[in-house]
Amino acid sequence: MLSDSVAIIGTGLLGGSLAGALKTVDPGIRVHFGGRRAAALEEATAMGLADFTSTNLAEVVKDCQWVILCTPIETMPSIARAIAPHLSDRTIVTDVGSAKRSVCETLTPIFGDRTPFIGSHPMAGSERTGLAAARPDLFRQANCVVTPLAESPEQTVDAVVGFWQRLGMHVRIIDPTTHDRIVAQVSHLPHLAAAALVEVIADAGVDPSTFGGSGYRDTTRIAAGAPGMWLDILLENRDEIIPAAKQLSLKLQDVVTALENNDRSALLDFLQRAKAQRDSTT
Amino acid sequence: MLSDSVAIIGTGLLGGSLAGALKTVDPGIRVHFGGRRAAALEEATAMGLADFTSTNLAEVVKDCQWVILCTPIETMPSIARAIAPHLSDRTIVTDVGSAKRSVCETLTPIFGDRTPFIGSHPMAGSERTGLAAARPDLFRQANCVVTPLAESPEQTVDAVVGFWQRLGMHVRIIDPTTHDRIVAQVSHLPHLAAAALVEVIADAGVDPSTFGGSGYRDTTRIAAGAPGMWLDILLENRDEIIPAAKQLSLKLQDVVTALENNDRSALLDFLQRAKAQRDSTT
Repeated sequence: MLSDSVAIIGTGLLGGSLAGALKTVDPGIRVHFGGRRAAALEEATAMGLADFTSTNLAEVVKDCQWVILCTPIETMPSIARAIAPHLSDRTIVTDVGSAKRSVCETLTPIFGDRTPFIGSHPMAGSERTGLAAARPDLFRQANCVVTPLAESPEQTVDAVVGFWQRLGMHVRIIDPTTHDRIVAQVSHLPHLAAAALVEVIADAGVDPSTFGGSGYRDTTRIAAGAPGMWLDILLENRDEIIPAAKQLSLKLQDVVTALENNDRSALLDFLQRAKAQRDSTT
Repeated sequence: MLSDSVAIIGTGLLGGSLAGALKTVDPGIRVHFGGRRAAALEEATAMGLADFTSTNLAEVVKDCQWVILCTPIETMPSIARAIAPHLSDRTIVTDVGSAKRSVCETLTPIFGDRTPFIGSHPMAGSERTGLAAARPDLFRQANCVVTPLAESPEQTVDAVVGFWQRLGMHVRIIDPTTHDRIVAQVSHLPHLAAAALVEVIADAGVDPSTFGGSGYRDTTRIAAGAPGMWLDILLENRDEIIPAAKQLSLKLQDVVTALENNDRSALLDFLQRAKAQRDSTT
């Protein structure tokens, strides 16, 4: 048994999927569900995802062994301050945010020494959002990063790693700053590239639905992601995303220069390096 | 029956798939297969794709009602000059190249009035290449553009449209210059974006295989395309690709500026417009 009870704060895709995943691996678990919107909490109950729900987060977290924050990153500090006084000293708190340095540095002192906070980033998601899109198998076989600070207690880190492994995730431990630098490259930059591509094509007055093949569809799929969630991510991780996006803009400018100069060797080199790199990472 | 015999020049993915597709819809058809590499022609025969093969293209095209050029675009003019004297006046020639203005303007006068040439762009492909990757259903339900010039005979245009429709393609007629402008946006620009993204991530020393989720995988899939084929496309359509790639570089620079200014409203606007556009075209 993972624990007798888990509090999930946030009634979106990740919160709902997490509740479903927990109940799949451990049917006896009690899930407490908290959030701002009573209608979403009722929906969670109707979907069989919650044993107790409340918009009063102090009630939600009471006596729970785990608290998992599944809300937008920018709301986490105020939620942390609201729940911290109501946690028992056997509670472990983690989150599912996509940027980690600011989250870990901000939340760790709010929870203090008595209730350890360790950041997590389960790398599972969808361009669909909301409780209705929740899937209990969302986490299975996906990657997860756990991001302790230097002072995080080792046995708590192990417990958080075990929590996600129990849901079928491949877990690795990485410090928050390195995590943010990596996801800026492999997750946040692809989103910017996809969104920019969609807009350039629209600006040119070209309708891709009559012409776009699978190349257009795949390359731009993630541009349909929830704007509010991505705004949250971009602002939280801007220190890492800014240099990455600059590099992408410059790389495209290099390609333009090579095209303008009819530089076969530079273009072939560009295409060959990209193919070799892509082939080596599938 | 489409015709009694079709000559396919070029033993790659498209030539092989075309042979398989023709034999699927019309088992009685004779396929003549021509190319530079005898080993590939033997493979085509062994795969049941060819009834006659030769590296001598004059022999390949002799008495065929259709000739379909499935080679790299830059080889087409010399192939056209080699076969033009050997075509009957009932032959129709088309091609499968991804850029059309230069192809149509160059090949039409080589074939002259007696043998009409009409360009085609069946928008089907794969990041896999070569005869071994050929699939007889590659064209089914895919888009195809036929690109006549103003002086192209109407009944020949109709025949070329019918040829691709018979293979299950959705065909539309567009002039070559407009075609090139559109594919620069929906096909060639996504390739550049995917390749640039892969290289920026590699340059940053980040290994996406341990971290990349489905976002990275989908956004960069086409970067694994054949470098030689893509070099051919980029050079043939550079006049249209250069301004498109410049716009993408500038769009990313705009995002960098918004991030540097912590400009929530510009970033949200960017993300919302991209989502709306992407949602409207799936």
